[in-house]
Amino acid sequence: MPAPDPARRNERSRRAILDATRALLAETGYADLTVGAIAARAGAGKQTIYRWWGGKSAVVLDALVDTVAAEGMTLPDSGDLRADLRLVLRATVAEFADPVLSATTRALTIETLIDDELAVQVRDRLLRPQLDAVKDRLRAGQRAGDVRTGVDLDQAVELIFGPLYHRWLLRTGPLTEEYADGLVDLVMTALRRGNGRAADDDERRGS
Amino acid sequence: MPAPDPARRNERSRRAILDATRALLAETGYADLTVGAIAARAGAGKQTIYRWWGGKSAVVLDALVDTVAAEGMTLPDSGDLRADLRLVLRATVAEFADPVLSATTRALTIETLIDDELAVQVRDRLLRPQLDAVKDRLRAGQRAGDVRTGVDLDQAVELIFGPLYHRWLLRTGPLTEEYADGLVDLVMTALRRGNGRAADDDERRGS
Repeated sequence: MPAPDPARRNERSRRAILDATRALLAETGYADLTVGAIAARAGAGKQTIYRWWGGKSAVVLDALVDTVAAEGMTLPDSGDLRADLRLVLRATVAEFADPVLSATTRALTIETLIDDELAVQVRDRLLRPQLDAVKDRLRAGQRAGDVRTGVDLDQAVELIFGPLYHRWLLRTGPLTEEYADGLVDLVMTALRRGNGRAADDDERRGS
Repeated sequence: MPAPDPARRNERSRRAILDATRALLAETGYADLTVGAIAARAGAGKQTIYRWWGGKSAVVLDALVDTVAAEGMTLPDSGDLRADLRLVLRATVAEFADPVLSATTRALTIETLIDDELAVQVRDRLLRPQLDAVKDRLRAGQRAGDVRTGVDLDQAVELIFGPLYHRWLLRTGPLTEEYADGLVDLVMTALRRGNGRAADDDERRGS
């Protein structure tokens, strides 16, 4: 009998733990999720989870990063920037409007406000790849002449997600498809070329 | 000797407690602030604070609401919307860049994510008056022809503060005057009339 391969066994355990975390998040939500429950569902030891991750928030972060990575981090490029942004914004609004996903994001946001190290991890591993995917699409839009050349693309990405995040976090209004489409229209007006001379004058005057 | 007026005495105590809270916030920050320290500084009893407010977060909220109300809740209207928004955004960016104010806002944000009742209070008493002041200025801009008539002013206000809040909360970039001015330029381009026919076509097409 050949010796078991510890690397493969570890990878199987890791996958089982992340799958169990996602399943339990959907079933019980973040607040009631425990490392013990994840371990039991995954057929792993609690000590394994503590040794590999340190605690609940880190294993949840890995489970979310894993999902986002599996979904792929490139935006569609149909050639119609407005249509592509509408797809992204509608999908993001739907995620924020989903009670389970929203509760998980809210819980993770709390922990990032308390724990600076986790905040860096969430920003660089979970958030940045998603923001960068939108930035790449805007850069393609810039090459195609749909976005003015003077626009700071990091600011443009924040102009898209900031208002949504603000509305979700502070619960100041409904999160609907109409809202998503309206936001895209405002953003497109802010970014695009072809507004005539006024927009270009503005760039020279503004910065 | 006339009997002491309990209403006046209570109002004096309330003011002393709110003043003490603001002073201690600036000196020690939110995390190290205690109800005991507020009571000692204000010459009041801890039980008074617990009875009137319930706890630390509620008295801090009242102290902040009090400050904002004292500063006045109307935006300047110089007739130049871009200049007025730059003033507001630069001031808000400076507040978020201030370590003590930023720490207080961060701590209060955490508590609102945990405590739904406090979240409603913070939104309606602290945040809404500030957002409404900007909305009023945008409405005046709409009357003056600086903002397109089709623009949803609630969305417009979020377009201004959302990106700033996103950058501050997620620490994705520097908070500087250049940043504030760049954001105002993007927002002005999104909102204003006088982009030529494109913007108006857009309104009809978009919503």
